[in-house]
Amino acid sequence: MHENNNMKKQFKILLYILFSTLIISCFAFASFGQEEYKDLKNKDLKELYPGGLFYEVEHYSQSKKSKQLKNIILMIGDGMGLAQVYSAMTANGGHLYLENFRNIGFSRTYSSDNYITDSAAGGTALATGVKTYNGAIGVDPDKKPVINIRELAEYKGLKTGIISTSSITHATPASFIAHVDSRGSYEDIALDFLKTNIDVFIGGGIKNFEERRDRRNLSQELKDKSYQVLYTIEDIQKVKSGKLAGLTAQEHNKPMPERGEMLVPATQIAINILSQSKKGFFLMVEGSEIDFFGHRNSLPGVILETLDFDRAVGVALKFAAYNRETLVIVTADHETGGMSINNGNYKTGEVSAIFTNGSHTGITVPIFAFGPGADLFTGFMENIDIAKKMMILLKVEKQNFSIKY
Amino acid sequence: MHENNNMKKQFKILLYILFSTLIISCFAFASFGQEEYKDLKNKDLKELYPGGLFYEVEHYSQSKKSKQLKNIILMIGDGMGLAQVYSAMTANGGHLYLENFRNIGFSRTYSSDNYITDSAAGGTALATGVKTYNGAIGVDPDKKPVINIRELAEYKGLKTGIISTSSITHATPASFIAHVDSRGSYEDIALDFLKTNIDVFIGGGIKNFEERRDRRNLSQELKDKSYQVLYTIEDIQKVKSGKLAGLTAQEHNKPMPERGEMLVPATQIAINILSQSKKGFFLMVEGSEIDFFGHRNSLPGVILETLDFDRAVGVALKFAAYNRETLVIVTADHETGGMSINNGNYKTGEVSAIFTNGSHTGITVPIFAFGPGADLFTGFMENIDIAKKMMILLKVEKQNFSIKY
Repeated sequence: MHENNNMKKQFKILLYILFSTLIISCFAFASFGQEEYKDLKNKDLKELYPGGLFYEVEHYSQSKKSKQLKNIILMIGDGMGLAQVYSAMTANGGHLYLENFRNIGFSRTYSSDNYITDSAAGGTALATGVKTYNGAIGVDPDKKPVINIRELAEYKGLKTGIISTSSITHATPASFIAHVDSRGSYEDIALDFLKTNIDVFIGGGIKNFEERRDRRNLSQELKDKSYQVLYTIEDIQKVKSGKLAGLTAQEHNKPMPERGEMLVPATQIAINILSQSKKGFFLMVEGSEIDFFGHRNSLPGVILETLDFDRAVGVALKFAAYNRETLVIVTADHETGGMSINNGNYKTGEVSAIFTNGSHTGITVPIFAFGPGADLFTGFMENIDIAKKMMILLKVEKQNFSIKY
Repeated sequence: MHENNNMKKQFKILLYILFSTLIISCFAFASFGQEEYKDLKNKDLKELYPGGLFYEVEHYSQSKKSKQLKNIILMIGDGMGLAQVYSAMTANGGHLYLENFRNIGFSRTYSSDNYITDSAAGGTALATGVKTYNGAIGVDPDKKPVINIRELAEYKGLKTGIISTSSITHATPASFIAHVDSRGSYEDIALDFLKTNIDVFIGGGIKNFEERRDRRNLSQELKDKSYQVLYTIEDIQKVKSGKLAGLTAQEHNKPMPERGEMLVPATQIAINILSQSKKGFFLMVEGSEIDFFGHRNSLPGVILETLDFDRAVGVALKFAAYNRETLVIVTADHETGGMSINNGNYKTGEVSAIFTNGSHTGITVPIFAFGPGADLFTGFMENIDIAKKMMILLKVEKQNFSIKY
């Protein structure tokens, strides 16, 4: 009986060890679970993607007889590193509109306080040419407002616009509008839209304009400033001219495929309106949700969002190739997910990828440029150099303008 | 007693389950062990790296008045994807010789039978302009020999050379020399060296020349063909002219840091000798062991090898910037390790990375070009396009030559 008791004791200890080991194993495998999306069948994507995958990519050559630069379209794929680009390229049978670019560089994305930037410091760098701390929107490390390229363009008399699939008050678009200490101050950011003379903005974020703690209805105030305030992409597509505020969702627009056609027609409408300017225009277009799916380690989502963004790049390229006075720059604020591409098939569009974390990483991101001045964006550079070079090309000098806040 | 027996049985079963679970856990953690090198302190690197880290990068501008192309230096970082490049750039305080390149493209590396190439099919693509099956050296998918850029250059009267930190009979250098069904036929590959008129080759692999099953001593046969056959980098550095066979290791040269200065002086000596040619030269330089460390998921190794390779790029750039008739192309055959960069610090040179597998991946790899014709190597292209464009630039046409085997 004593032996039996002893054995019971051993039995309990053994059970305890087994239980602990099982728990540890579960943790180990849970981390591997990050790979759950890695096997992507193209047929699934075909069902998901409106209009089907394998879109044809049209080819545009940068004219050797480019005219003088007049317009800039800056396109930011949030979280779009080289792996994101190449997974989408593989899914689309080996082709993207990005193939049209012959001027290629790499952007060092680190912020003033971190090797790994967030979208606020990353957006501010691309908008203002100033490295700042993570979380900052349009302010420097001392929290002093710094002027951005869109403001400089506006003050010079160019038409300006911003488009985003996220809330228009989210970090990246906000960096081209606002000056706040903290990216989370969405209602303050919405208020900063009223202080600008921006011609077109399209994105989500109704609630920051209409359901505010200060009880102001900014949409009504926008209407009072002669903006057409519209809530659906169908209504937005009918606009021919004038000022346009497109607020297409309470917060962020839905992700693909639920979002459907929003980014491509928004880009087209913005170009239609802004290109009526005699002095030129500056337009920022963000594919915001590549990043969202990177955080979620969802490969199908990353691919769908990157393809949607690439088709918007196609719209900009088509205009620029015809217009010859327009510089198109495509880049990212940072990579999201630490993604690698571990297998694929160009014929079926299948891709396997592994994500190594749920946040941003520090790897340099590609820059693609097309049109007059595109050769300035080749080679390795800082993210802030992109803003500085755009300012040089638009012939706007910071010291000539001060921020009116 | 019956209860006791039953308990013993349960005890055994439990022990069995525990043992199995432990084994499974070990496997799970072994895979996590791939990250063991992820935290790299620069002080460790400083102790490892001969001459110390943080080397100064000299800046060279591609002359706008480039002369007609006469020489090509093709530099292959085996397994060097964008993450490998950027980890080394971070470790070196944010700078590499690769910063000098303004003409940048991306190479699609897949082979004729696989989204993920091996170094044989990858090397053959870069050497011959033909996609072939994994394992093939200088033969097409039907196992028929295909002529390579070095042979075409040689037949046209240019001096030619190849350098490798691995055995000179290994897949990448072999692709510029040999025509065999299978990359493992090292002795046949060594024999193919004797069939060429190559001017300089430096790498490991003595045993495939001197310890052969057919009892031939190829080093002696090379001497009979008036080659200087030398076994140390010190002796090699004394060579001023003439034919040179540098065999610096039994098999592969040691990895960094044990290897010490080998790739940089070998590149310099090869350029010194080959540039005596009036008709021009073709030189291939491989940093072979970036790939080896990628397979081992060793971040310090990847960084040390990439930095060593980058300094060899610096030697080529210095010559090309002065010479103005030389095109330098730097690329990779594929990425190895599925590496992401998850943290870093430019000031201390620290880098954290995660590898997602122990083999090659399918992600597109960068191409960097400098000198006359460099603008041909911008944008997305197939790996075989690199060979085809080099052939166009050297004005060698495949149909004018046949392989003499």
